[in-house]
Amino acid sequence: MDDKYMLMIPGPTPVPERVLLAQANHPIGHRTAAFSEVIAEVTENLNWLHQTENNVLTLTASGTGAMEAGIVNFLSPGDHVLVGCNGKFSDRWAEMSEAFGLNVERITAEWGQPLDPEQFREKLEADTNKQIKAAIVTHSETSTGVLNDLETINRHVKNHGQCLIIVDAVTSLGALNLPIDRWGLDVVASGSQKGYMVPPGLGFVAVSEKAWEAYETAKLPRYYLDLGMYRKATEKNSTPFTPPINLMFGLQTSLRMMRAEGLENIFARHQRVTKATREAIRALGLSLLAPDDAASTAVTAISSENVEANRIRSVMQKQFDIELAGGQNQLKGKIFRIGHLGFVSDRDLLTTISSLELTLRELGHESMTPGAGAAAASRVFAQS
Amino acid sequence: MDDKYMLMIPGPTPVPERVLLAQANHPIGHRTAAFSEVIAEVTENLNWLHQTENNVLTLTASGTGAMEAGIVNFLSPGDHVLVGCNGKFSDRWAEMSEAFGLNVERITAEWGQPLDPEQFREKLEADTNKQIKAAIVTHSETSTGVLNDLETINRHVKNHGQCLIIVDAVTSLGALNLPIDRWGLDVVASGSQKGYMVPPGLGFVAVSEKAWEAYETAKLPRYYLDLGMYRKATEKNSTPFTPPINLMFGLQTSLRMMRAEGLENIFARHQRVTKATREAIRALGLSLLAPDDAASTAVTAISSENVEANRIRSVMQKQFDIELAGGQNQLKGKIFRIGHLGFVSDRDLLTTISSLELTLRELGHESMTPGAGAAAASRVFAQS
Repeated sequence: MDDKYMLMIPGPTPVPERVLLAQANHPIGHRTAAFSEVIAEVTENLNWLHQTENNVLTLTASGTGAMEAGIVNFLSPGDHVLVGCNGKFSDRWAEMSEAFGLNVERITAEWGQPLDPEQFREKLEADTNKQIKAAIVTHSETSTGVLNDLETINRHVKNHGQCLIIVDAVTSLGALNLPIDRWGLDVVASGSQKGYMVPPGLGFVAVSEKAWEAYETAKLPRYYLDLGMYRKATEKNSTPFTPPINLMFGLQTSLRMMRAEGLENIFARHQRVTKATREAIRALGLSLLAPDDAASTAVTAISSENVEANRIRSVMQKQFDIELAGGQNQLKGKIFRIGHLGFVSDRDLLTTISSLELTLRELGHESMTPGAGAAAASRVFAQS
Repeated sequence: MDDKYMLMIPGPTPVPERVLLAQANHPIGHRTAAFSEVIAEVTENLNWLHQTENNVLTLTASGTGAMEAGIVNFLSPGDHVLVGCNGKFSDRWAEMSEAFGLNVERITAEWGQPLDPEQFREKLEADTNKQIKAAIVTHSETSTGVLNDLETINRHVKNHGQCLIIVDAVTSLGALNLPIDRWGLDVVASGSQKGYMVPPGLGFVAVSEKAWEAYETAKLPRYYLDLGMYRKATEKNSTPFTPPINLMFGLQTSLRMMRAEGLENIFARHQRVTKATREAIRALGLSLLAPDDAASTAVTAISSENVEANRIRSVMQKQFDIELAGGQNQLKGKIFRIGHLGFVSDRDLLTTISSLELTLRELGHESMTPGAGAAAASRVFAQS
């Protein structure tokens, strides 16, 4: 049967019909009063979602472009940075920092394990000459489903005093509480195809006053990603370059939906679905890559000793038209990942788990009680 | 009356319904076989449109991002570049080149006049030490409706031997013949919201073999816009970072429409509509900014001694719901611009001219014969 496709990967995430239809409107001129109103509304709602008083800046770029903007606007060649590395995306930020001539010190953890905040504390405390200009941390590491302890790492950064904290919040923004101003996060980057319920193509960057001060002296070259231009334009409800107008229509609609649902409800939904996923996976006799106390609310990475991860994905896709994500780099073929952020409901998760159980049965994974997965997920939903 | 909006600006340009609806489809995973097929088809059709054998690379970025990629991938800090400057966008490339530490020599012309290829010839011939690494030329200068003589400038660049030619084809690609391989253009950048009939959000870069050689030694830092990564990924029908999936669906559809129309027909349509616009404007007693032999087929810039440009735009918008563009920078308030590229037909132009005539009458511009504009445009259409 065609058109029954179900997207359960950590991005792109499912997009509500009304968002899809909003971006099917005819584009309008981006220098018109009508489009300024769109920018004004979107910016206000982005600030709400980011829990910040500073205008969130919107770029025509993927999440990687937003992270690059977060790095090149506030640093200079040769600057020392600490980069937390425990997955494909956090590794990418170390690689990117090196491409821009930064002096990178990696703080690593095994893929599937969270970064140890103590290692940040030690490095930062030892840096009495204040050489470390930034700590770059991936909040939710999409490749492993690990949530790093950003709050604690940030506390150590704050004790350092001068170091900026630059956060990849690509799969955490909108999926769990991230009080940017209250925590004093300096740069927070994310992308539309995740918690925002919008197709890919928009990147977002929130910037603190302290980071704007660093911007004044930062010497890395930039133009298209020069956030100073975006800041000035946003203040006038404009953009420095032509924005992706139709995606902005979609974003306008999705942010209205998010405001209607409310931050607390959005976060509670993600926590509930995450818990249900994990209980169900355990009940099915599969293994969870990330520990419970470092579980991303965006994505769950799963392995099985008995059944190949990619065979599971393949049957899920062919038989149930459910797209799951695979492992990346060294985890290729070893895990599969269920995305559960953005426009994902309890029902979607029940559907996925029930289909997964049938899939496992077909693939000869016998070590489970029939119905155990759905039952475990249902218990979580019933209790919350 | 709502929803009668008509977009006659040089970008965003009107988007066909079937392109709008294609991008309203649910997104699919970008690492799937189904999406690889989309990339394969789109790349093949982009190569056709660009008249090149080298894979055209698609970025999540506006035209400015595509131009930045065209510059940072092939040059090193301190490199000497010639930049043709005769409008807002060509000026931007000089500014951008300076932001990246290039040694910029501007070849200027008055806004509204084309660049003089002789000045390029002189500079390039005098450069016997081969210090000039690139000539950066805006083909169709959107801010003034001037078409620069790229073919002649390129011939001088070719005589130099080592210098690369980097072309802003943002409003020329798809609007007139641009035989990239035959002319040996090294880097050609453009954006989706112009001749492509797709909303903004996608940037395109075509790269010659000679430019790829320069890439190997070019030292400007880059990551998100590192075209080497895009090249490798495109060969595998993939992308280095998450692409704007829904815009890609739209592009897939628009390129099919363009192939069905055929390159020659597309170019002839743009020439015909341009000629009709210019004849009509003259018949209405208004002035054309660009001379006939340097007229962009994407946009026509117009001024009137009797009537303020922005009053014309305002009445056109309020009374006929037709959006025209204004002047930029020093031309603000002095000109208005009719965009006629992409999904623009003879009929659209007749509509615009007839509405313009009524607008001029309302604003007291009496020096015209009633019906003269539409008659002049009709004559062009009847003859071609």
